[in-house]
Amino acid sequence: MTDRSSEAESELRPGEVAIALPAQSDAALYFIGTIHTTWRTRQECPKRGSLEGPICLIVVDERWRMALTGLAKHRRVQVLYWMQRARRDLVLQTPFSTMQTTGTFALRSPVRPNPIASSIVELVAIEGTTLQVRGLDCLDGTPLIDLKPERGAAGD
Amino acid sequence: MTDRSSEAESELRPGEVAIALPAQSDAALYFIGTIHTTWRTRQECPKRGSLEGPICLIVVDERWRMALTGLAKHRRVQVLYWMQRARRDLVLQTPFSTMQTTGTFALRSPVRPNPIASSIVELVAIEGTTLQVRGLDCLDGTPLIDLKPERGAAGD
Repeated sequence: MTDRSSEAESELRPGEVAIALPAQSDAALYFIGTIHTTWRTRQECPKRGSLEGPICLIVVDERWRMALTGLAKHRRVQVLYWMQRARRDLVLQTPFSTMQTTGTFALRSPVRPNPIASSIVELVAIEGTTLQVRGLDCLDGTPLIDLKPERGAAGD
Repeated sequence: MTDRSSEAESELRPGEVAIALPAQSDAALYFIGTIHTTWRTRQECPKRGSLEGPICLIVVDERWRMALTGLAKHRRVQVLYWMQRARRDLVLQTPFSTMQTTGTFALRSPVRPNPIASSIVELVAIEGTTLQVRGLDCLDGTPLIDLKPERGAAGD
């Protein structure tokens, strides 16, 4: 991680500002599964997932199997995942797409203090602990953090 | 935390199942601010925040001040926060509202392996590092994890 971080630090674009991260963290996450997609590099990933996009697989860890009970009746599911390759220390960013320098909290960039992504997907099927879904745009191997029915759905 | 946890374990409702959490966590979060609401107990909290609800305050830590640059132009903001009082080890839950036992991932209950909540709020004003927003339903003192423009908004 140190190597990657050093590498990233040399890649600041014009206007970007990095700060010192806190010395200590405040809470801990458990990865609860893994997302499998056909995208191996960030360049390959679509900019935004489409509900008509290709089927991706979400494999939930065996430990959480029972927690999937009743999920199949929901068509739309909110997926939280961890963008593990993103640096966390930028407060100002200059996206390539606009080249306009903007605050991190005014962007949906993966680069943020807590790199958590939230996507709404269409649930196509569940078999055992594997979900087939449409609507993701993340890298193959991305760690899963949470699944919940879309807000407003039955059972909310 | 241990005391609370023991207390919680005695409160399992019919049909609820707790499992052993993983021995180690996989990633760390930084709290980036604090949410201030008028609700001091879970009973007082509305079941779901309303965009016509009362104004709540989000105070971002000074460290992240610059990251707010440009946020004011967004009307709807996605807020991620940490439901720190929730237990994390239930795979089956029996909500009081329905008394139907259901998997954790088929519910939006705070009780889940990673107790992260996602809400869309209306941004009323920003003054310094304090945001006035409508649409939250969380306890006073809830730790903030992230702010980002609602998906589909300008700058996405």
